[in-house]
Amino acid sequence: MQSNMNRRGFLRLSAGAAALASFSWTASHAGASKRPNVVVIVSDDHGRGDLGCYGNPVVQTPHLDALAAEGVRFTNAFCTTASCSASRSVILSGLYNHYNGQYGHEHSYHHFRSFDHVRSLPVLLTQAGYRTARIGKYHVAPEEVYRFDVALPGGSRSPVRMADNCKAFVASGDAKPFFLYFCMSDPHRGGGKAADLPHEPDRFGNRDQGYPGVKEVTYDPEEIVVPDYLPDIPECRAELAQYYQSVSRVDQGVGRLIEVLKQAGQYDNTIVIYISDNGIAFAGAKTTLYEPGMNLPCIVRTPWQKNKGIACDALVNYADLTPTILDFAGATPGDYEFHGRSFQPVLERRHADGWDTTYASHTFHEITMYYPMRVVRERRFKLIWNIAHGLEYPFASDLLESATWQGNLKRGNTRYGRRTIDAYLHRPRFELYDLQNDPHEVVNLADDPDHQARLNEMKARLKAFQEQTKDPWILKWEYE
Amino acid sequence: MQSNMNRRGFLRLSAGAAALASFSWTASHAGASKRPNVVVIVSDDHGRGDLGCYGNPVVQTPHLDALAAEGVRFTNAFCTTASCSASRSVILSGLYNHYNGQYGHEHSYHHFRSFDHVRSLPVLLTQAGYRTARIGKYHVAPEEVYRFDVALPGGSRSPVRMADNCKAFVASGDAKPFFLYFCMSDPHRGGGKAADLPHEPDRFGNRDQGYPGVKEVTYDPEEIVVPDYLPDIPECRAELAQYYQSVSRVDQGVGRLIEVLKQAGQYDNTIVIYISDNGIAFAGAKTTLYEPGMNLPCIVRTPWQKNKGIACDALVNYADLTPTILDFAGATPGDYEFHGRSFQPVLERRHADGWDTTYASHTFHEITMYYPMRVVRERRFKLIWNIAHGLEYPFASDLLESATWQGNLKRGNTRYGRRTIDAYLHRPRFELYDLQNDPHEVVNLADDPDHQARLNEMKARLKAFQEQTKDPWILKWEYE
Repeated sequence: MQSNMNRRGFLRLSAGAAALASFSWTASHAGASKRPNVVVIVSDDHGRGDLGCYGNPVVQTPHLDALAAEGVRFTNAFCTTASCSASRSVILSGLYNHYNGQYGHEHSYHHFRSFDHVRSLPVLLTQAGYRTARIGKYHVAPEEVYRFDVALPGGSRSPVRMADNCKAFVASGDAKPFFLYFCMSDPHRGGGKAADLPHEPDRFGNRDQGYPGVKEVTYDPEEIVVPDYLPDIPECRAELAQYYQSVSRVDQGVGRLIEVLKQAGQYDNTIVIYISDNGIAFAGAKTTLYEPGMNLPCIVRTPWQKNKGIACDALVNYADLTPTILDFAGATPGDYEFHGRSFQPVLERRHADGWDTTYASHTFHEITMYYPMRVVRERRFKLIWNIAHGLEYPFASDLLESATWQGNLKRGNTRYGRRTIDAYLHRPRFELYDLQNDPHEVVNLADDPDHQARLNEMKARLKAFQEQTKDPWILKWEYE
Repeated sequence: MQSNMNRRGFLRLSAGAAALASFSWTASHAGASKRPNVVVIVSDDHGRGDLGCYGNPVVQTPHLDALAAEGVRFTNAFCTTASCSASRSVILSGLYNHYNGQYGHEHSYHHFRSFDHVRSLPVLLTQAGYRTARIGKYHVAPEEVYRFDVALPGGSRSPVRMADNCKAFVASGDAKPFFLYFCMSDPHRGGGKAADLPHEPDRFGNRDQGYPGVKEVTYDPEEIVVPDYLPDIPECRAELAQYYQSVSRVDQGVGRLIEVLKQAGQYDNTIVIYISDNGIAFAGAKTTLYEPGMNLPCIVRTPWQKNKGIACDALVNYADLTPTILDFAGATPGDYEFHGRSFQPVLERRHADGWDTTYASHTFHEITMYYPMRVVRERRFKLIWNIAHGLEYPFASDLLESATWQGNLKRGNTRYGRRTIDAYLHRPRFELYDLQNDPHEVVNLADDPDHQARLNEMKARLKAFQEQTKDPWILKWEYE
């Protein structure tokens, strides 16, 4: 267990280790005369199953597929919390959000914000001599903690225009390398229900007049392959068709952004990372730490990738992103601790030993949605601790009101995907799943006598993780 | 019901109403040439039963009793949330904390803070030309929202020294009136357990070397009258003796502060208000919205009180304090809404019609203690809505570990005070009490067929209150 904790616990990088990381970068693309630019693209509620390169036969994502073909795609990349604000705070801080203070949504009356002691990725890169810009969705606070040099204009629902708006920043004659944080609001739900369509699906940002520079790709609900975690009902198909359309818009934004990088002559010195903040905006995914909520697309393309187009099975999570990017930039601070660690060493490998366990920690989505969960996820087994299991599982209002959830209820179905509705709403204190034999997480082994040793061992590991990452909710092992 | 809501709902004071309020003040002390100074004294976890003037036969509080003898003491004054930070935010904003954003503790990892749109008492008084100072416990954030001109020095556990430290501010030759916010940390638990005493009670800030200017008053545990909501066991008596000692220190701080006001020649033009933030730091009071948690001491002494020493039975709450003080100061803004209303009109009355209903709203104490409760409290009946009733009632760590709670458990008692431990820990969705026949709130009438009409009417009133005060948790009527 100790070795596991070292791998995911606080990682103190000595000055020596920082120098080594920097050397590792230099060695991997010999001859480069300057530090790489970094582009982090974050889409909103894009599921891992919904890209061509991750095996979806219907949805069209040619630009993302091309990016993956030049780089590496991770098959076990996890957000640590399945909620927008919170997940973005982890992405930008390298810290679990139970420690960085962004326990839930930043906006409106939810009003969560990170601690002033957090040293975020943009601030650290600025200190290391990078130019930094963000565009689109932000959703973290306070701004002093997550400060970028500039916030570029552009509606986050118009991804091609967003990319165009980055031209001047990307093409600047400034000798400094840059960090661009590019966050689309697609394919999040939004824009109301399409009253003119059968089953009145949410629009997922789609609109009749389209968006500048986007060739809208529409989908026939009949052609959709409904994933196992969703109900195969017409309402869900109608919503997935809208969602796919939104995903294809994301893809075109990524395509244009890469074009912008190429036109500026920067692409060959730019690392591009594509991720989604959490799972898709359907009950069963987003806000949950079931696999559809946390196992997400993650494509990393560096200009010097040798084994192009590989899939890597290392278990990485979003607390690793900031350490990884700082590692690329040779900007790892010697006097500061992250929860994650750089996964740069595994980028050329299909299988990476030593990357076999990950953790997740979710507490709030909305302020009214208190449902802390802590997870230890191994390659085969997964333990979920539902700390507030006495509560019914809380709903984000848009998921509750969705045509998919309501349609399934109205049909009188007792299941939603593979899980019973009752099991979805009323969860036990512990859920232990064998993902190999039960990939849909429906057979809870927590009470199975044959698995008590494993359960106890995983509980101990979870508790040790909480200790090392200073999780306030650790006291819930002892008392409410 | 509508009239009830108007009385406690958003109160928009027109310019005319503000002028009237100002006139009312002028009329009530004709000849005064300047606006009154205001001193708000807030003690920490001081129960209503634990002052001589409120009928306690043992605890010695001569200075508080003298203050009450010059003014009015309220017998139905309520905090709206039984937690330090949150309650103080209500005191200083005139808004329920579900709306001002201070949902729970401000310090450490709890990290709750109010919204920037809140216009607090000190800021409004500053704008009206007052000098403002605070001393002692603050516990609200951000500072820009709750800004005072100056924070005077002085450890909040040393109340006489605190009072001495206010001398220069109070005696300043400045022609402006002043607002002094004087917050002692007594009689909060603190200082560890007294290992040298039987039953190892918490010290409640008491220490062997005492405090400057304080004549420590000690109490014999045998003499204590244990209130009905606490267990009459030696551990509890030992802790109450310590608590009383701390209360007597508070009293001496108040005494010295009044001396300071008199010496500066300011007392005859100063309104002094004494309150506690929430109930005593014992399970059964603090953090709960049972009567011992929310029904608190509130003494208001103005220099022009005619009916000196009366008790007033108006149901007032801490959201009323800011509007009341602004009313005294003639500083009510015409363009801003409070949840409370000025109770200046009832100060000379023993009984006040139209002050017959109040509301309370508690959500967090610590960030890990999610237990939202909403209360409508009438003169006779009281409804508590335990929104997260599926959870065991959460404990603040110091209450759980207290000699009183642990001692009661170790003795194998199934009751704690009048309530069963099981009922304390596991609460139903609704609790409806007849306070006339059941002052200890142990006979829940929510399921009583004879009380369904009342229950429904009170639920509707509670919901209307939430609507008018924009309570995010109102959605819990519909879904989790």
